[in-house]
Amino acid sequence: MIDTCLFCKIIAKEIPSSKVYEDEHCYAFLDLHPINIGHTLLVPKEHSTNLYEIGDDTLSVLAPVVKKVAIAIKSALNANGINIEMNNDPIAGQIIFHSHIHIIPRFQGDGFKHWHGARDYHEGEMEEVAKKISLVI
Amino acid sequence: MIDTCLFCKIIAKEIPSSKVYEDEHCYAFLDLHPINIGHTLLVPKEHSTNLYEIGDDTLSVLAPVVKKVAIAIKSALNANGINIEMNNDPIAGQIIFHSHIHIIPRFQGDGFKHWHGARDYHEGEMEEVAKKISLVI
Repeated sequence: MIDTCLFCKIIAKEIPSSKVYEDEHCYAFLDLHPINIGHTLLVPKEHSTNLYEIGDDTLSVLAPVVKKVAIAIKSALNANGINIEMNNDPIAGQIIFHSHIHIIPRFQGDGFKHWHGARDYHEGEMEEVAKKISLVI
Repeated sequence: MIDTCLFCKIIAKEIPSSKVYEDEHCYAFLDLHPINIGHTLLVPKEHSTNLYEIGDDTLSVLAPVVKKVAIAIKSALNANGINIEMNNDPIAGQIIFHSHIHIIPRFQGDGFKHWHGARDYHEGEMEEVAKKISLVI
């Protein structure tokens, strides 16, 4: 636990939250400022800043819980779809620096629009980019 | 493999793609119409429509690969952040009905804006909603 971390304090129940789910490894609660009503945050109990730092074992137990919570939200709120999002680093929209996964119910006509890409690839660029990434995996 | 599924055909290499990573369980390749250059799709090889249908074992092997590919993209392309997204059902932006996870590099000044919630909770509503979801998990 990190003393200055908001989500560590929520997990430790030093700060109240609207709990949706809890087990040994993770805690899920409603986002205070939801995209849509029912927007849930799933956090690993062990502190990590973001995806790059989460242990593989933790990721492996977390992923089935993402599914479980998503199905429950869809069913309980009669949602028409679910977006899963994880924002890593401030430029990507991360505000709280304890890893968290957004599970967001979507409803017909809610009006949220997805990003459209700025541009497509130039000829030959795609293979170069794929190679560049694959070389460091 | 589903004969009519675009991503099953990409995995089977019947349709070409710019491969970023492959192992026994999953395949990662560049999105043809990227949000940003380097936008990668990670797909489980076994066909499933979306998150609700993916087996827990597959999710457990997939999640550490999301991290591995995200770190590689960030490093190879000097990105400033990474968004992970998974869109389930058409209302949530799903277009291809084979489960896939978007791994999107973000760069300072790329201009993509995140959703702002339509409204906050009314008094007492938060506890009701959390209870409703937790009861079906």
